[in-house]
Amino acid sequence: MKTPLFLLSDFGYSDGYVAQMKAVILSFSGYDTPVIDITHSVLPGNILHGAYHLRSTLPRLPEGSVTLAVVDPGVGSSRFGLAALWRGRFVVAPDNGLISMLSGSMKIWKLPDPEPGSAPTFHGRDVFAPAAARLALDPGWTAFLTPLEHPVLLEEPRAVPGESSLTTVVLHVDNFGNCVTSITEDDLNGFVPSEVITDSGSTSVVPVNYYSQGAGSHGAVFLRGSQGFYEIAVPGASAAEKLGLNPGDTVSLHGN
Amino acid sequence: MKTPLFLLSDFGYSDGYVAQMKAVILSFSGYDTPVIDITHSVLPGNILHGAYHLRSTLPRLPEGSVTLAVVDPGVGSSRFGLAALWRGRFVVAPDNGLISMLSGSMKIWKLPDPEPGSAPTFHGRDVFAPAAARLALDPGWTAFLTPLEHPVLLEEPRAVPGESSLTTVVLHVDNFGNCVTSITEDDLNGFVPSEVITDSGSTSVVPVNYYSQGAGSHGAVFLRGSQGFYEIAVPGASAAEKLGLNPGDTVSLHGN
Amino acid sequence: MKTPLFLLSDFGYSDGYVAQMKAVILSFSGYDTPVIDITHSVLPGNILHGAYHLRSTLPRLPEGSVTLAVVDPGVGSSRFGLAALWRGRFVVAPDNGLISMLSGSMKIWKLPDPEPGSAPTFHGRDVFAPAAARLALDPGWTAFLTPLEHPVLLEEPRAVPGESSLTTVVLHVDNFGNCVTSITEDDLNGFVPSEVITDSGSTSVVPVNYYSQGAGSHGAVFLRGSQGFYEIAVPGASAAEKLGLNPGDTVSLHGN
Repeated sequence: MKTPLFLLSDFGYSDGYVAQMKAVILSFSGYDTPVIDITHSVLPGNILHGAYHLRSTLPRLPEGSVTLAVVDPGVGSSRFGLAALWRGRFVVAPDNGLISMLSGSMKIWKLPDPEPGSAPTFHGRDVFAPAAARLALDPGWTAFLTPLEHPVLLEEPRAVPGESSLTTVVLHVDNFGNCVTSITEDDLNGFVPSEVITDSGSTSVVPVNYYSQGAGSHGAVFLRGSQGFYEIAVPGASAAEKLGLNPGDTVSLHGN
Repeated sequence: MKTPLFLLSDFGYSDGYVAQMKAVILSFSGYDTPVIDITHSVLPGNILHGAYHLRSTLPRLPEGSVTLAVVDPGVGSSRFGLAALWRGRFVVAPDNGLISMLSGSMKIWKLPDPEPGSAPTFHGRDVFAPAAARLALDPGWTAFLTPLEHPVLLEEPRAVPGESSLTTVVLHVDNFGNCVTSITEDDLNGFVPSEVITDSGSTSVVPVNYYSQGAGSHGAVFLRGSQGFYEIAVPGASAAEKLGLNPGDTVSLHGN
Repeated sequence: MKTPLFLLSDFGYSDGYVAQMKAVILSFSGYDTPVIDITHSVLPGNILHGAYHLRSTLPRLPEGSVTLAVVDPGVGSSRFGLAALWRGRFVVAPDNGLISMLSGSMKIWKLPDPEPGSAPTFHGRDVFAPAAARLALDPGWTAFLTPLEHPVLLEEPRAVPGESSLTTVVLHVDNFGNCVTSITEDDLNGFVPSEVITDSGSTSVVPVNYYSQGAGSHGAVFLRGSQGFYEIAVPGASAAEKLGLNPGDTVSLHGN
């Protein structure tokens, strides 16, 4: 089986940046590596938003795969590049916290310094892409790298339980306007929400199993999404728009 | 020749959803299936808009190919999944009307029920992607499926002829602002429009063979588009913007 | 090594147009050509914007590769199609100026006329894609084409030096809001800017090596971007938004 390489960035779709990374990656294997875009719509420079995308997609990718993740507001500075091995999958990324939501044990290595002639504004192409391509061809390359003992880790957003509430953060608003919260199965622990409180007001919420199940409830629904986190949705409409929510916003769920 | 697999959805480009479907699809063939995006910008939950994209692109895809089409507002409910064979091409989709514009004869089968552990909110990844991947590797798989006798079919938007008019629906607004109507060669039948009437007013229109041919006409042009339908365009500008049109809007063409 | 084929257009991501081109291209090789998107977000019909993307990405693509570039407001008219060989890389494009920024020597050929049955509104699919696919399989095909002596060339935007200033054009605004100017290393010639003057006012600017280096300077930074041109940026924010700049706008840099 070929080793697939997945790409995640905040580069968007309006530039040639992603193609230039792909040209580097593919030239290593004679254009024979399967390269798949996760998304390039991470909010520009927003490391935590990129960390969410990495966390939600990586468990779905095959073992042995390599993911190149670049959200890098400090590009050009002396922060390291890293390679990490998490549950059998490699990640290549800047050492700035992008791997913060990959909980559990990881092996982490420093990448070599940028070569002379590298563009100080585009390590994705000139530093990380070659490293990811090498790893995809030869996982044993890590034997030649220095372990990174203390990677930069951001504080992971966690759901905070109250007396009859759970306070969470909107990790991501998806294409349908569904608001992915930081709540996981473990956080829930029997809690049943009946009301969502946001900065702009409160809305009734009912737990359901799938989006359309709560249609006609004149409010929001709360369900286990496909990305490993609970979501607040409005059937047939954008919950983000109806509730005035954006990634990073704090939300309280009240119930019993 | 490898069997290519084409993807059509309303999942957008800002989530990892499409990549997660691709990871499933490609794992079936050891990452050796060519996978090509048609578009993931179908209007969220708009089955008829997805049906237009499927209808306009499918005839251009090679015989033997498999297209995975997911626009699925009822995901999680008990609607079936289906596989259809249309002019030698396979389509895998929810049974909700997405195949409505594929006129003519089709063979249609029910897909197996979701396996335990499938996410009730993401049948694209957990039900349809595995089915599409199997079909791409083995078209004979349909022999093990149950025929679906009465698939859900939406009323296909048709052009309605008046005394000296033709009333149509805007099926799609493309990246250039061209408004794709439901009018085909057969509907036209010698009719020559000179005026477009919309909710916001009327505009002169001239029939042309290509976009720039009507430049300087201070109005709109009407021409046979590349997708099998007639289009209303404004040379060098967005017709949708100039005429205030959106997908689903009704438009009347008057002439003689 | 396989011959990769790169795609550049103003077709956007909301239509099936790119997929229809890919189906044509891939059918030539039994779905075995690596096809990579550069971008499809060139401003609709803006040839100079497409020329910038072609110029900035082409040097990064491997020798022997084929790039299909389609920004074609005159589609359907009698302008030629062309194939060009620039620094060992092939480009297939309409003869409308899209290759204007590829300075230096080029070999250029006329493409065959559209075949009967081609859509007059979609030469990308029906004329250019088959030509690009043929070139990717057989570079010797050019021996059967007629040389094109006088291709259409637009005036390339150049930086204009003043007494203590440099006047330039914004070639492109990238996903981060960085404004790519027409200034190259050669234009700079020791000039050090301290002020950016735009239609909407003036802003201080400091030369830096990478984006975040100028953070806290309460103004803009000026640095050699990764695409071969100097850029005006604002660390952690969109320079385009802060300075009110769009592609095509004129900007003066003052200094000493």
